[in-house]
Amino acid sequence: MKSLITLSTALLMSLNTTAAGLEHVEPPNWWVGMRDTSLQLMLHGAGIAEAQPTLAPYPGVTLKGSHRATSANYLFVDLDVAPGTQPGELALTVAGRTLHYPLLARARGSAERQGFGPQDAIYLVVPDRFAQGGSGKQAAMKEGVHRADPGGRHGGDLAGMRQHLDYIAGLGFTQVWPTPLVENNSAQYSYHGYAATDFYKVDPRFGTNDDFAAFVSEARSKGVGVIQDVVLNHIGSGHRWMADLPAPDWVNQWPAGYTETHHARMTLQDPYASASDRLRFTDGWFVPGMPDLNQRRPELATYLTQMTLWWIERYGLSGIRTDTYSYSDRDFLTRWSARVMQEYPRLNIVGEEWSPHPAVVAYWQRGKKNHDGYVSYTPSMMDFPLQTNLLAALTEDDGAHTGLTKLYEGLAHDFVYPDPANLVLFDGNHDTPRIHSLLKKDVGLTRIALAYLATTRRIPQLFYGSELLMQSPTERDDGRVRADMPGGWPGDGVNAFTGAGLTAEQREMQDWTRRLFNWRKGAAVIHDGALMQYAPLEGCYVFFRYGAGRTVMVVLNKNARPVELALARFGERTRVGDRARDVLGGREFQLGATLAVPAHSPLILEISR
Amino acid sequence: MKSLITLSTALLMSLNTTAAGLEHVEPPNWWVGMRDTSLQLMLHGAGIAEAQPTLAPYPGVTLKGSHRATSANYLFVDLDVAPGTQPGELALTVAGRTLHYPLLARARGSAERQGFGPQDAIYLVVPDRFAQGGSGKQAAMKEGVHRADPGGRHGGDLAGMRQHLDYIAGLGFTQVWPTPLVENNSAQYSYHGYAATDFYKVDPRFGTNDDFAAFVSEARSKGVGVIQDVVLNHIGSGHRWMADLPAPDWVNQWPAGYTETHHARMTLQDPYASASDRLRFTDGWFVPGMPDLNQRRPELATYLTQMTLWWIERYGLSGIRTDTYSYSDRDFLTRWSARVMQEYPRLNIVGEEWSPHPAVVAYWQRGKKNHDGYVSYTPSMMDFPLQTNLLAALTEDDGAHTGLTKLYEGLAHDFVYPDPANLVLFDGNHDTPRIHSLLKKDVGLTRIALAYLATTRRIPQLFYGSELLMQSPTERDDGRVRADMPGGWPGDGVNAFTGAGLTAEQREMQDWTRRLFNWRKGAAVIHDGALMQYAPLEGCYVFFRYGAGRTVMVVLNKNARPVELALARFGERTRVGDRARDVLGGREFQLGATLAVPAHSPLILEISR
Repeated sequence: MKSLITLSTALLMSLNTTAAGLEHVEPPNWWVGMRDTSLQLMLHGAGIAEAQPTLAPYPGVTLKGSHRATSANYLFVDLDVAPGTQPGELALTVAGRTLHYPLLARARGSAERQGFGPQDAIYLVVPDRFAQGGSGKQAAMKEGVHRADPGGRHGGDLAGMRQHLDYIAGLGFTQVWPTPLVENNSAQYSYHGYAATDFYKVDPRFGTNDDFAAFVSEARSKGVGVIQDVVLNHIGSGHRWMADLPAPDWVNQWPAGYTETHHARMTLQDPYASASDRLRFTDGWFVPGMPDLNQRRPELATYLTQMTLWWIERYGLSGIRTDTYSYSDRDFLTRWSARVMQEYPRLNIVGEEWSPHPAVVAYWQRGKKNHDGYVSYTPSMMDFPLQTNLLAALTEDDGAHTGLTKLYEGLAHDFVYPDPANLVLFDGNHDTPRIHSLLKKDVGLTRIALAYLATTRRIPQLFYGSELLMQSPTERDDGRVRADMPGGWPGDGVNAFTGAGLTAEQREMQDWTRRLFNWRKGAAVIHDGALMQYAPLEGCYVFFRYGAGRTVMVVLNKNARPVELALARFGERTRVGDRARDVLGGREFQLGATLAVPAHSPLILEISR
Repeated sequence: MKSLITLSTALLMSLNTTAAGLEHVEPPNWWVGMRDTSLQLMLHGAGIAEAQPTLAPYPGVTLKGSHRATSANYLFVDLDVAPGTQPGELALTVAGRTLHYPLLARARGSAERQGFGPQDAIYLVVPDRFAQGGSGKQAAMKEGVHRADPGGRHGGDLAGMRQHLDYIAGLGFTQVWPTPLVENNSAQYSYHGYAATDFYKVDPRFGTNDDFAAFVSEARSKGVGVIQDVVLNHIGSGHRWMADLPAPDWVNQWPAGYTETHHARMTLQDPYASASDRLRFTDGWFVPGMPDLNQRRPELATYLTQMTLWWIERYGLSGIRTDTYSYSDRDFLTRWSARVMQEYPRLNIVGEEWSPHPAVVAYWQRGKKNHDGYVSYTPSMMDFPLQTNLLAALTEDDGAHTGLTKLYEGLAHDFVYPDPANLVLFDGNHDTPRIHSLLKKDVGLTRIALAYLATTRRIPQLFYGSELLMQSPTERDDGRVRADMPGGWPGDGVNAFTGAGLTAEQREMQDWTRRLFNWRKGAAVIHDGALMQYAPLEGCYVFFRYGAGRTVMVVLNKNARPVELALARFGERTRVGDRARDVLGGREFQLGATLAVPAHSPLILEISR
């Protein structure tokens, strides 16, 4: 992937708009050698809908047709780029002017790229809140920087993220997931990125598309893949489409007036759901400022699919995180995921389905045999059920159905999933209160949670700042959950990256987290080993990862007192006399009949005989 | 079924023991015309193991062989009763004496009997705590009556239950499930019945087997079927087997000493469970006083299966409730359920699997395609998941994943079950705190719970006394949960059966419950109609049962204030101008744009056009 061509997007954009009257051509370029040879260009310009485009002869490329939707200002042009076509520039004449459209060569190995997976650990960053490095340009945008406002823009940017890639890689992470970077040009509350006003352009306040390319490229050089956060369900109300809809049904319309989704996601699985409730879930809007896209509209479905492929191919991404997954049209999601995985069979896509129910999350994972025949090609999902259980395990008293039992039985539910090891388990994200606050600021419990993330049969994802014990209100409060990473701004008194000003507790936690994920990075048995778990007893939960002659034993002691854990029960995986190495503490010793585990602590042992 | 032969069991017993040295012959009789022609008699008597039995010629019946286990005092005799064999008496000579063994004719329609199902409502009774009618005999039993002791015997009996069948039928119930009636001759805590000391004999403190026959017969004459509570997993330590085990592995032995189950039921589904944990779940004992049966022992498996069939055939039962279902050997459960359903294809069996997880309960239901290939023939299971959700719905604040959402999403999980309509949903049982106490003594919420039981797509089961708002501690307290039904004992100052001494609130609740279940009895659309539910909004949860031109609308208003429910949202099932009848209040009216629903109340409307 090092040979990836990094053509300037600015250049592409300029090429695209040489045709007068053409304001936008999307996607701004395409590639030869895609497995699906079809390409649909969406042209935007005053009165362009009636144009009859012609294509100068180009070996392998066919102009199959064009059509308009309702608006006079959009034209959809269908091309076919046959296998074996050489890269170059198409000359497409539209309304008397010629558009020079780049057909690029794909990077070597692009189709075969390995997406993120169980061998990885993901670091989630909110770019506006991570670090300000100087690539962001505020000029001409509707909302400027107001760092004192929890809901305002704070000015983090791509250069800031890029400058701290060593920090992220140094913590042991091999993937970074920034929340969306595309333009969100809204008058307020624009920082979060989930209200796109341009699907193809990085928000200038983060930098340029070239800044993004440089960020991805440098991340990859440090062994960190980049996961793109894609929103298929909605746009921002400031998107130019809203001033001139290609067709009335481009967004979901409610004749009776603005209608919000009721978030009743199970209408999609429920055998008893009413059609009207299902429609309201899928077609209802999140908020008035986020028009809900109608992916049943074929040109929009194609647009969103090509847009996804464009970012992957153009910037060499290692995967996609799909926002508000189930809110999009589910048949579209089948086709979208099929197409992405067709082009990149080893890529990964992780969908967000915020449900505590394994049966609901499993519904969307590739390979699930569903009751209603629904088929998905999305390989991974965010594991909200297990995250919910992890929090319950560490906050509830243990009982027959509470506390640690929930975590144990939650993982036992893996029989419901077609590929549980490929789910992403997280300590928290930009929408949830900070884990350290939910765990009542108990460092021991927070370490148990992170140790579980890092050792169970999942892809772990950490929310930036958890390594610093960052806190938030325990009720939802987005602005404060997404607080600034200390040290990301010039003049910050506390600096996570240098360690300056951190409390001793924070420094210890940061160092502990660094050891944990760096150890995981090299611990192949965690990436692909088997798992054996034992029912939690007396506040201790024990499981093993094992295979190919390697064994890791994990003990989570939830008790507020040290325990002497009797080991006879775990005879299938370890026995008296085995050698043990505490991978975080460094101590090596021989296992006896019992094992001392400190209060409120995880203990991770590499076992050998 | 009215022609069912009611041979005296006492007579059968006397017939069985005419062979000297033979202390027990089980089963005490059998029938011609069973679909499976095999029959294994378990003979018990001093030194009988080495006997070589012979059978006097009997057309259709073959003595296939006999064998001993380890003990010298048990002999297993295998017979075959071919199709077309006539009823009569076998003459089986064992150790020089002749046993006259009855082969009875089956009652007409016995094999085809209709078991309990969605057309029914079940009333759960703890016989020791329901009513004392005089059939119980305390003499010669180890524990007598101590009514003041919550954990002691209170003296309820079969005659008491029989005398109050009109009350049960009058409430609208069509099935009664008494907790186990078989002999539990233990020195203390014997009243609950789950520690059998004789599998074939009614505990004398409840009455005789003939009293049971009379109870079942009279119940049936009043339109009430009887469900037998069968325990396959364990016995009482006072069972004679424990003094002379047929074989050392007749009960599950733990060489290291007494070992208790850890109740980790998901070891049976968990892909990560250790074999030792799975063994501990299945083979561990509940308590020292309940030896855990090893159903992998073939003769014991046959014994338990024939015992189940014997009760069904002998007394004309309408179904089986199986205690602690998953704790028995799961391959045995497959064969056991297959055999019972082979003999009675339309019978019902409901298993107790106390898990809050649909995927776990569904695992055991007939027709489920399991991940591990496990097959069950048990048609019904207790719906612990939905019962858990019902309580959560009425005790938690509503949120994205809490309160009413849990009930709505719980029912939406029906796609996980092969036959959700055949699950038994209950307000509580002998092991759970009283629902009215869990609902903080709020009559409105308790009515919502009962209305839900009676109208959702399930078989409803009510715990005796819920109609009186009986209370208990909210932490587990068996003795008080199973408090005496007022009026069941001579001299009781309060009498549920006559209404004497009930508070106005209790009388109203009892009357309301009576109207609810009597209405349900005739409401075919509830028994087999479709269901459509709408996502709960603003504390109101609405669903419909419909089909064949009938529609029932159910509104559960959880709010502590009346609501004016806008009806436009439910246009798929009802519309302005429809006629509505409040089935509990009696009021008839025409539906407008909104519907008034009182605070903390269910509203059940029959809708017609």
